[in-house]
Amino acid sequence: MAAERLVVVGGDAAGMSAASQARRLKGPDELEIVAFERSHFSSYSACGIPYWVGGDVPERDDLIARTPAEHRERAIDLRMRTEVTEIDTARGRVRSRDLVSGDETWTGYDKLVVATGARPVRPPLPGMDAPGVHGVQTLDDGQALLDSLARTQGRRAVVVGAGYIGVEMAEAMLKRGYEVTVLNRGEQPMATLDPDMGRLVHEAMDGLGITTVIGAEVTKILTGEDGRVRAVATEDAEYPADVVVLGIGVEPETTLADAAGLPLGVYGGLLTDLAMRVRGHENIWAGGDCVEVLDLVSGRERHVPLGTHANKHGQVIGANVGGGYGTFPGVVGTAVSKVCELEIARTGLREKDAREVGLQYVTATIESTNSAGYYPGAALMTVKMLAERRTGRLLGVQIVGREGSAKRVDIAAVALTAGMTVEQMTALDLGYAPPFSPVWDPVLVAARKATRAVHGSAT
Amino acid sequence: MAAERLVVVGGDAAGMSAASQARRLKGPDELEIVAFERSHFSSYSACGIPYWVGGDVPERDDLIARTPAEHRERAIDLRMRTEVTEIDTARGRVRSRDLVSGDETWTGYDKLVVATGARPVRPPLPGMDAPGVHGVQTLDDGQALLDSLARTQGRRAVVVGAGYIGVEMAEAMLKRGYEVTVLNRGEQPMATLDPDMGRLVHEAMDGLGITTVIGAEVTKILTGEDGRVRAVATEDAEYPADVVVLGIGVEPETTLADAAGLPLGVYGGLLTDLAMRVRGHENIWAGGDCVEVLDLVSGRERHVPLGTHANKHGQVIGANVGGGYGTFPGVVGTAVSKVCELEIARTGLREKDAREVGLQYVTATIESTNSAGYYPGAALMTVKMLAERRTGRLLGVQIVGREGSAKRVDIAAVALTAGMTVEQMTALDLGYAPPFSPVWDPVLVAARKATRAVHGSAT
Repeated sequence: MAAERLVVVGGDAAGMSAASQARRLKGPDELEIVAFERSHFSSYSACGIPYWVGGDVPERDDLIARTPAEHRERAIDLRMRTEVTEIDTARGRVRSRDLVSGDETWTGYDKLVVATGARPVRPPLPGMDAPGVHGVQTLDDGQALLDSLARTQGRRAVVVGAGYIGVEMAEAMLKRGYEVTVLNRGEQPMATLDPDMGRLVHEAMDGLGITTVIGAEVTKILTGEDGRVRAVATEDAEYPADVVVLGIGVEPETTLADAAGLPLGVYGGLLTDLAMRVRGHENIWAGGDCVEVLDLVSGRERHVPLGTHANKHGQVIGANVGGGYGTFPGVVGTAVSKVCELEIARTGLREKDAREVGLQYVTATIESTNSAGYYPGAALMTVKMLAERRTGRLLGVQIVGREGSAKRVDIAAVALTAGMTVEQMTALDLGYAPPFSPVWDPVLVAARKATRAVHGSAT
Repeated sequence: MAAERLVVVGGDAAGMSAASQARRLKGPDELEIVAFERSHFSSYSACGIPYWVGGDVPERDDLIARTPAEHRERAIDLRMRTEVTEIDTARGRVRSRDLVSGDETWTGYDKLVVATGARPVRPPLPGMDAPGVHGVQTLDDGQALLDSLARTQGRRAVVVGAGYIGVEMAEAMLKRGYEVTVLNRGEQPMATLDPDMGRLVHEAMDGLGITTVIGAEVTKILTGEDGRVRAVATEDAEYPADVVVLGIGVEPETTLADAAGLPLGVYGGLLTDLAMRVRGHENIWAGGDCVEVLDLVSGRERHVPLGTHANKHGQVIGANVGGGYGTFPGVVGTAVSKVCELEIARTGLREKDAREVGLQYVTATIESTNSAGYYPGAALMTVKMLAERRTGRLLGVQIVGREGSAKRVDIAAVALTAGMTVEQMTALDLGYAPPFSPVWDPVLVAARKATRAVHGSAT
């Protein structure tokens, strides 16, 4: 029997995890694997770029989990700097272009994995392409930013956007000795939090010496006589800048998939079934930042670009492609981040998410500490909890605080997955010892307060 | 209508939480509350004693959550240094003795809360009562130890027992500049872990300069001419000691309850229903270290003396006594601790627990890191996971590692409570960012390996 051929479009987390897992299950005599990657790098941690730019991670190669050569040793034909330009589902083939030679080739597939990732949002504003304006989505982007910093004299950095990438890049630029201004369109930084929790992040950023401007809609990038960026303009003001970092977020990179007629959701991401198979396509799978995933709390599809999901998708796809079995049931929307010593975490629904899907809810916000109050270095933590009115089902948790805050959100992530009520959560047997928690863990304190709010909402 | 009287026996976490919660629900005109405490202190954190002795917590009073005066301000008649010597359930009264004056009094109750705590195990060996031999169960004990250290010339400390109290006291004595030897009867320190995980603790203690002797059954305490301790003897050897700390564990203090005919379990703890009411007694509740609790994983009662449970019990009792409603569904056996930088955590069943209750299981042990491997300071963590054979239900998790290890056990604690399988756990949406976790959280890596082991156990 001739080997089947698996073609993978995109050589990062989802695509190469799928390829590796498929290879574990099927040898080269059963399954030929060809993967296409247009950049210079495969299987790297994009989430690590801020720490590389900030200097915490010394070398770019530290972020590479597996090199192209390592993939090839495992009989995966990974073709770097080769861009897939068309998916022909009718004939089961993809067209690719060698970005160095310009040569185009058609490659047939029996099974196809689409893992084309996401692209940074770049609003079409004047000056957006000027030297000194940088995205940080790929290792290529990160390298370009570092090269640019090496050539830059001034020390003023403007970060556009105050989401995860924005705040992490603000920390990175601060660590490199820049004077950092963050321009944020919304009411508070970290729009993935409710504004009352975002305000805590804002205050902490002030304390760190990061200038955060809210309600700041960028209108253009101003350039100097040399053509380089010199300032960022909003409707109200100009912010001098020697370098600009764009942290506005990303959207699914599904141009190819769309052209091929594959089904896209409202956020532009590919729609798959639970086995990560593209809906309506027997032999095509998709995963990573180019797909939408089911939000288990709201029951709707969302776009949640995160390396941890991409890796899970890859495992599931690889298992199914390789003749095994796996599913990805969905997400609850967990995310953690930090700005210097401040930790930020969220899972589940924000207030506006709950309203959008018709859920009525109560909220409870509490302040506590990461360790027993008397333990040296006990540091503050604020926990906000949302529960459904009457039923008391946990809907979401947001945490802002110092060391030991962020990963506590995992407690809520598991509780959300299990469909627990906040009253059930009050009895959770969480780890307690003075160095690790007050006798009532902050999450339990929040659950107790939320339970009282639920009781008060019983009518 | 005359006020009902609630009598509370024992003025620490469970008893005073119950009293406070009852007071929140009912004012003094409806409910009179009398509480008896034989020691000098109420409502304190016994778990904090090792950190006070070790010097991390500067003042004894830092460990006191609420003073007797504060309780009295809230109309709780807390009688310190007053020991209850008899419970007369037939006539609904308790006899108490003022430990200062020696006066005895009978006090009637409508409702009774038994919160008599636990007492340290003190094997009846020669020399056990010699000056320089100390338990660390109460603030009185801690004060006596500190006073004794102030009078002690030598710098050799022997800690008997290598459970939580033992290892925490080893750290405390090390911090005070003592040369520390820990004598442990069992095969490895931390018998609440499986021996393969206990071995990791042993190795780390070696690295910290703590001498740990295993298989060391203490036979007597040797004293010098001045009557003070001079060494601890086992069958094989003598260990010179200027001070001895007993960390052998505790047992329920239920002498009074037993004499009153209240029902005790196999570990000697009081047996209650889900509302923490003593079985068969309409108007008596019990909570804290003197009760046995349902282990939700094994389905059996266990004795789990921990401040966090005591506080929960108190809340539940206070709610029910005060005319509200609350239950304590049980525990999954979560515990966390540390020895210097080493963090230790466990939840659910060990291998021997599973065998004891007839569960067949598979195990998976993995090594990972607390943050992305490339992130500065990424530190090792070992996770062991037990899952039921065939069904794959999570049975237990043990973690030993550096910073960020211990509280990860909460993920498993919630999953155990929810009855998840290890395969379900592989899809958990846990917080990921390079400073907080590898792209696969260590708990997920263990769940993946355990899932493969379950699949292999399918016959």
